[in-house]
Amino acid sequence: MKKAVVLLSGGLDSTTALAVAISEGFSVNALTLFYGQRNLHEIDAAKRIAMAMNAEKHLILKIDLGAIGGSALTTDIAVPKANLTSKSQDSIPITYVPARNTIFLSFALAWAEVIGCFDIFIGANSVDYSGYPDCRPEFIEAFEKMANLATGVGIRGGKFHIHVPLMKMTKGQIIRLGTSLGVDYSLTQSCYDPGPRGEQCGRCESCILRKKGFEEAGIQDPLYRG
Amino acid sequence: MKKAVVLLSGGLDSTTALAVAISEGFSVNALTLFYGQRNLHEIDAAKRIAMAMNAEKHLILKIDLGAIGGSALTTDIAVPKANLTSKSQDSIPITYVPARNTIFLSFALAWAEVIGCFDIFIGANSVDYSGYPDCRPEFIEAFEKMANLATGVGIRGGKFHIHVPLMKMTKGQIIRLGTSLGVDYSLTQSCYDPGPRGEQCGRCESCILRKKGFEEAGIQDPLYRG
Repeated sequence: MKKAVVLLSGGLDSTTALAVAISEGFSVNALTLFYGQRNLHEIDAAKRIAMAMNAEKHLILKIDLGAIGGSALTTDIAVPKANLTSKSQDSIPITYVPARNTIFLSFALAWAEVIGCFDIFIGANSVDYSGYPDCRPEFIEAFEKMANLATGVGIRGGKFHIHVPLMKMTKGQIIRLGTSLGVDYSLTQSCYDPGPRGEQCGRCESCILRKKGFEEAGIQDPLYRG
Repeated sequence: MKKAVVLLSGGLDSTTALAVAISEGFSVNALTLFYGQRNLHEIDAAKRIAMAMNAEKHLILKIDLGAIGGSALTTDIAVPKANLTSKSQDSIPITYVPARNTIFLSFALAWAEVIGCFDIFIGANSVDYSGYPDCRPEFIEAFEKMANLATGVGIRGGKFHIHVPLMKMTKGQIIRLGTSLGVDYSLTQSCYDPGPRGEQCGRCESCILRKKGFEEAGIQDPLYRG
């Protein structure tokens, strides 16, 4: 059975990407990168999802992105609070985390090389995140080229492939796809600012995007089932 | 004054790369990634060097490469008391850390983007490390291309440049260059398997390479000055 490494945050998109990898016949190795800014409930969600969807392995790594992002607050870059549609001067959303997907894919690449696998899945999406430079197809292509030069894979006669199955889908299309593949979205977690028991706030940009997506899909969000 | 991010391990090569960046007029921001390598003394060396060479900032980040495994430098695989020419089955040295330079450069890229800098220095070298895929010029070029697509830098009218000043130098040439730039090599640390107070074993591949380099340069290694 061919193996894949799947980046799994515990959110809706990465869980759907995991389901796509499974539907394509891959034995999945889930990789969760815990980088400080995100809430702990997302890590719990990732654990539940990896278990429920029978991941072969689930590796959770803590990385110190907070220290890099935090330095923005002490230097000349202002990081105001706003929503996904508000852009900074250069039209990049201010919620963009510098080089995040580059770092995430680099760790996925390292693990893939170690376990001898050539396929990496990421739930990146260029529709809802249209201003994020590292969600664009041209970035993914360039990463794939670099990955094949960075590692010993060519020497071993293989080639890395970065799969981005949700690249051109709306949130509603993603939810319909995941639902058709049997994803249990009650396991996922989207809120940037949940309550002490993981309750979704319903008001942050991520909750609002999720809500719109389920409306667009015409599906009841199981997180809010009464 | 133009800024650079310089990857600084505390070893001989990265310290020389730091000196090159300074000599080219950059204000240097040193980045040390602590990845569970056995060698804590390298982190201490990096601290001493960043301070002695007046780095504007020194950021030390802990990342969990050990959990990924796959290398003699991060796991329980014995560090060979041999030379760099000993290769694993596929001709990659077993001290190669999977995708290490990709991960390192990705963090450097994130920090560079946050502090508004376009120049990144890495002490990679394709002469002594001829079997490491991520020390080759074609890898560096591919990373640079990817970096300019991964980030908002193009939108801001800039362009990232990955500087690899030592790429084609022998260890002897590196030591001569650093010495001409005033590097104090007594601050650096090379051993893969040092004693409890940082004593160099003198027998691992890195110690042997260092010794040969100083011999080639015709310079006394200040670490071994009696």
